Amino acid sequence: MLERFPAWRISLSAALHHNRSQPQSRYVQLATVRKNGQPANRTLVFRGFLEHRDQLQFITDQRSAKVEQIAEHSWGEICWYFAKTREQFRILGKLSLISAEEDNSELQTVRHTLWQNLSDKARSQFTWPHPAKSRESESERFDTNLSADIPPSSYFCLLLLTPSEVDHLTLRGNPQNRWKYWQNQDLIWQSQAVNP
Amino acid sequence: MLERFPAWRISLSAALHHNRSQPQSRYVQLATVRKNGQPANRTLVFRGFLEHRDQLQFITDQRSAKVEQIAEHSWGEICWYFAKTREQFRILGKLSLISAEEDNSELQTVRHTLWQNLSDKARSQFTWPHPAKSRESESERFDTNLSADIPPSSYFCLLLLTPSEVDHLTLRGNPQNRWKYWQNQDLIWQSQAVNP
Repeated sequence: MLERFPAWRISLSAALHHNRSQPQSRYVQLATVRKNGQPANRTLVFRGFLEHRDQLQFITDQRSAKVEQIAEHSWGEICWYFAKTREQFRILGKLSLISAEEDNSELQTVRHTLWQNLSDKARSQFTWPHPAKSRESESERFDTNLSADIPPSSYFCLLLLTPSEVDHLTLRGNPQNRWKYWQNQDLIWQSQAVNP
Repeated sequence: MLERFPAWRISLSAALHHNRSQPQSRYVQLATVRKNGQPANRTLVFRGFLEHRDQLQFITDQRSAKVEQIAEHSWGEICWYFAKTREQFRILGKLSLISAEEDNSELQTVRHTLWQNLSDKARSQFTWPHPAKSRESESERFDTNLSADIPPSSYFCLLLLTPSEVDHLTLRGNPQNRWKYWQNQDLIWQSQAVNP
């Protein structure tokens, strides 16, 4: 059976394809809101779409400040700039965290698979001392290799973004082009060309 | 007289220098908070520091959604990823808008100078129809050349970010390195090495 993707996802897949020579084309900036109402913003690596879903996968350490922020305010917006094709996607949506305690067995399986697919170096970061706390001086606390045979760290979380609005801007073209995408009440994606 | 820059600014200047071959190294993502409490995130071009100040300069169209957001919640956080040197700066601070109505003559002069230094193409965007509204079909509404002799568009604003916290992460190195910078009550910058 053919899957039907929303139009924004087809444009995003094209951008990922055309920019694939640049590893940083899979890096996005995620904005969240802190407990005190101030915004926060950091770079994350896009880990593909959840199978048969339009949800974007990321990973995070449960000790990271964003986990506390998301527990309070579950909305996030990623900004994704593709340097080679000079286009930007802004994706607003709800964030959900799949931790070691997740009961949904399908999502728990996805969490395990993502853990196994990480590099040894990326995996090892979840065994490091508490992020953003005063620097630990013993370098042996920062192992840089952790084999895939080790089960997922209890700090290792899957982070899902469920898009509800997308803004796509292309700087190429004369003038630029910009489209808005949103879901109607039946969750059907709508789109409109707007002024850049 | 020698100017003394805070330590984070010296690191940021080094990053800008080492990544200068990539035009997108001057692109940052700015997170703000919408009226409804949701975060927003978009790419902006860094336009240098305000002379003799540690404030970062950006420009914006007064009709842009971020202007309304900043009027309500003046805090913003930029996320700045440098692909070549693999390092990230997160800069949290207060945003202030210098519009055509600004009374401070020094800042008004800065606004005029920035306008003159823009490319003809960048200047022309401030004459385009209202951003993010339904697309105007007449292509002549989207001029792409506006000479520097034309006075600044009334929509042209200078946007200043006054940093209060900086987080600098370098992915190179084994393990990674991370520093936090913040101002004490006397507005003197403090710093600490933290776990990545």
